[in-house]
Amino acid sequence: MAWFRTLTQFSVTKSSSIRPRNTNPFPLPTLASLAQFSSAPTHETPPVTQYAGLEPTKPGEKPRVVVLGSGWAGCRLMKGLDTSAYDVVCVSPRNHMVFTPLLASTCVGTLEFRSVAEPIGRIQPAISREPGSYFFLSKCTGIDADNHLVQCESVTDGADSLDPWKFKISYDKLVIALGAEASTFGIHGVKEHAIFLREVYHAQEIRRKLLLNLMLSDVPGVSEEEKSRLLHCVVVGGGPTGVEFSGELSDFIMRDVRQRYAHVKNYVHVTLIEANEILSSFDDRLRRYATKQLTKSGVRLVRGIVKDVKAHKLILNDGTEVPYGLLVWSTGVGPSPFVKSLDLPKAPGGRIGVDEWLCVPSVEDIFSIGDCSGFLESTGKPTLPALAQVAERQGKYLANLLNRIGKAGGGRANSAKDIDFGEPFVYKHLGSMATIGRYKALVDLRQSKEAKGLSLAGFPSWFIWRSAYLTRVISWRNRFYVAINWATTFVFGRDISRI
Amino acid sequence: MAWFRTLTQFSVTKSSSIRPRNTNPFPLPTLASLAQFSSAPTHETPPVTQYAGLEPTKPGEKPRVVVLGSGWAGCRLMKGLDTSAYDVVCVSPRNHMVFTPLLASTCVGTLEFRSVAEPIGRIQPAISREPGSYFFLSKCTGIDADNHLVQCESVTDGADSLDPWKFKISYDKLVIALGAEASTFGIHGVKEHAIFLREVYHAQEIRRKLLLNLMLSDVPGVSEEEKSRLLHCVVVGGGPTGVEFSGELSDFIMRDVRQRYAHVKNYVHVTLIEANEILSSFDDRLRRYATKQLTKSGVRLVRGIVKDVKAHKLILNDGTEVPYGLLVWSTGVGPSPFVKSLDLPKAPGGRIGVDEWLCVPSVEDIFSIGDCSGFLESTGKPTLPALAQVAERQGKYLANLLNRIGKAGGGRANSAKDIDFGEPFVYKHLGSMATIGRYKALVDLRQSKEAKGLSLAGFPSWFIWRSAYLTRVISWRNRFYVAINWATTFVFGRDISRI
Repeated sequence: MAWFRTLTQFSVTKSSSIRPRNTNPFPLPTLASLAQFSSAPTHETPPVTQYAGLEPTKPGEKPRVVVLGSGWAGCRLMKGLDTSAYDVVCVSPRNHMVFTPLLASTCVGTLEFRSVAEPIGRIQPAISREPGSYFFLSKCTGIDADNHLVQCESVTDGADSLDPWKFKISYDKLVIALGAEASTFGIHGVKEHAIFLREVYHAQEIRRKLLLNLMLSDVPGVSEEEKSRLLHCVVVGGGPTGVEFSGELSDFIMRDVRQRYAHVKNYVHVTLIEANEILSSFDDRLRRYATKQLTKSGVRLVRGIVKDVKAHKLILNDGTEVPYGLLVWSTGVGPSPFVKSLDLPKAPGGRIGVDEWLCVPSVEDIFSIGDCSGFLESTGKPTLPALAQVAERQGKYLANLLNRIGKAGGGRANSAKDIDFGEPFVYKHLGSMATIGRYKALVDLRQSKEAKGLSLAGFPSWFIWRSAYLTRVISWRNRFYVAINWATTFVFGRDISRI
Repeated sequence: MAWFRTLTQFSVTKSSSIRPRNTNPFPLPTLASLAQFSSAPTHETPPVTQYAGLEPTKPGEKPRVVVLGSGWAGCRLMKGLDTSAYDVVCVSPRNHMVFTPLLASTCVGTLEFRSVAEPIGRIQPAISREPGSYFFLSKCTGIDADNHLVQCESVTDGADSLDPWKFKISYDKLVIALGAEASTFGIHGVKEHAIFLREVYHAQEIRRKLLLNLMLSDVPGVSEEEKSRLLHCVVVGGGPTGVEFSGELSDFIMRDVRQRYAHVKNYVHVTLIEANEILSSFDDRLRRYATKQLTKSGVRLVRGIVKDVKAHKLILNDGTEVPYGLLVWSTGVGPSPFVKSLDLPKAPGGRIGVDEWLCVPSVEDIFSIGDCSGFLESTGKPTLPALAQVAERQGKYLANLLNRIGKAGGGRANSAKDIDFGEPFVYKHLGSMATIGRYKALVDLRQSKEAKGLSLAGFPSWFIWRSAYLTRVISWRNRFYVAINWATTFVFGRDISRI
């Protein structure tokens, strides 16, 4: 078929002109790759044997910064990197950053999912345009610090997709910003039955399940007990995420469910389970205020420790069984098994250990920022909390540091030994915020739990909360959509299409 | 646990006050239902043995109109029904209507998914508020015309959900508006490997796959052949849907892919395969214009018949193999197996046969509208095309007819025999529209293929196309979002987050 052959030839010719460097440096045998794709893919045992990748940068090319992860830390770093001095390669299983502080609002439709997701190509446009900069939809499977190499595996999903394959990337500088994982404290059944609230697909799952349960409970044949169970939303973990999600849920119930699901509105209930106190990092006064307001909105605050989670009920330490239709788990985070497995110095808690310049000692050219990293004990500094604020500040600091190193001629692998890194990273806490529903929020501007300082609660805080986040959303597009979503939620209510 | 017991009691008490009628008319044994939910659900063999439902309406209650389906026909009908005269019960596996003419635009992000989905509760608010009106997330499994009953089965999905169960609904009037199904002409592999373009989840799947392929093709280790295959988008069917989708795709490639996927932009190609002529219902001049414009935008128009579809390639009748990364199938529609299986009079083509008043003869109180229905041969009228326009007009007509019947005291089952149905349904075609990308569209205002009349092409048509659809979108919320989506696509480009 002539037109199709022409198409293939055309593509081949073009490609060599747009990617003159780094194209197929470890070439694959064409026959092997053809064979791979003509046979039916088997997803159980992927034949991840071939290797390809990006070879070490050559003189005349820009040095390459490889960033593992696309969270707050990695994205803020990429945004600040001087792309005239460096090529940037990002390796992550998702092609966007999630604006996590607003994620809870998307679960009930106050905001739309796309309004809180920022494509990496918009954060650092060089990654989609520059011939030596890339985004690879992949996960890192190993780091070879001696050879300045990372091993990766492509991420594929969906029907008729490819089997994942492995490849290697040489780096001049490596930034590990892999974030953390939701902790389950080894409680049985959490991973199987609870939904976390860390990624956009979690929020999508929560929204779909909530709407499904609201509709199923109105179908004839559902018993009264089952109806109460289906519409019992349980949140485990009283940190800011759990509290904000509970507040959003109660807003949704009080406004939209009453109007759109009038038949079952009296069956919907929200329970927040926390082992200690809710919002433990906040000022006492704010905590009491939050407790009062949440209770007023119909959120049941229960002190308890979860022992076991089953498909339709969870069991507390005292043996109480709590039936649920939706279970959201947000009890904090810890390092992922991959981070734990890395042969690098470690900070207390299993995070990757860094010095005051966020540099991993004992290896060359490796840095680590965000929730996956922590100060080494030898620095005498405390482990910083796993907050977007910390990650963002570290990303910004490291971008400046790498730009400085690049300018001083230390951008290449093994060439920054004698360069002055300048001022070390110092974290100054700007305060914490959390919404609690019904146009109310908490703003705690104290620098630490013990320090004194301003703390506010109520509508003014809510206004500060909204304004602060609106200005912190990264792109103008999303800033615009967040404002529009808020306005339409106010005017028309939340959308209940289950799509 | 006192608080939880209180919650259950509270719910039980309340429910009886808000749903005084029709609650548990065929009561389930409580023990049986408890047992069902405490055991682990097995999704293979659902124990669909219990029966519950809505019993026949009693004197003093409003008569009940049961609507099967939530497409153009069913939703337009529900919107127009006089809810002071009738209770409305809608049975459908989706809780929203899809504004199908704009669905193709959502596949590449010109519009967002939610902008083209309208919740049924917003189309007919009585359904979520009135005590005798309901929306049931279910599918119809059988119709018992003699007893004025429909058998239904609940639709459940996702992890930890319930097993589907069966129930029955008595109707006074039944409206079958179940739509049609995409035709595959029995070609092997279409259902497994191609994506249709009829529901929001199809558009979501297309968008996810397109973005996945764009990213995977840039990962090291992909051969040149594989890259060309991954980025070859094939559309089968040259009707308005296929053409509009091809146009949207080429817009996306020319603007967003060039900018956001610069590394692979030269590998992306669109092929439109049609056995006969594209846009066969349009004026000759418009067809030539469309062919010219699509070719200019880089869409390859291929005349061919698909013989077989495999995971990564399709085979044409002449033996040509066409590798593809994305395959969209839109070769028209036909009646679903359920519609075919119904023991009702049939129109040519297997649709449910109706008379001039959209009433199914030989049974009492059953009407059928939209793509699932057609005029009986005895009426001497031709089968109407499967268009939104026809379905909407029929829904509107039938709403008025049912309101008239209700007013004349014939709302109850078996009571409309002597009522004058008034004017029969007459369809007047208002014309056809289709966009072809690059701010160009076709508008054909002729009433039929043979008739003479106005036909326009180019930017003015595109402007008419946009304005017409903007005003036809049902709710103000979605009208606002469609306008906002168009504006942000123009200013910021399309969103490429793969969420």
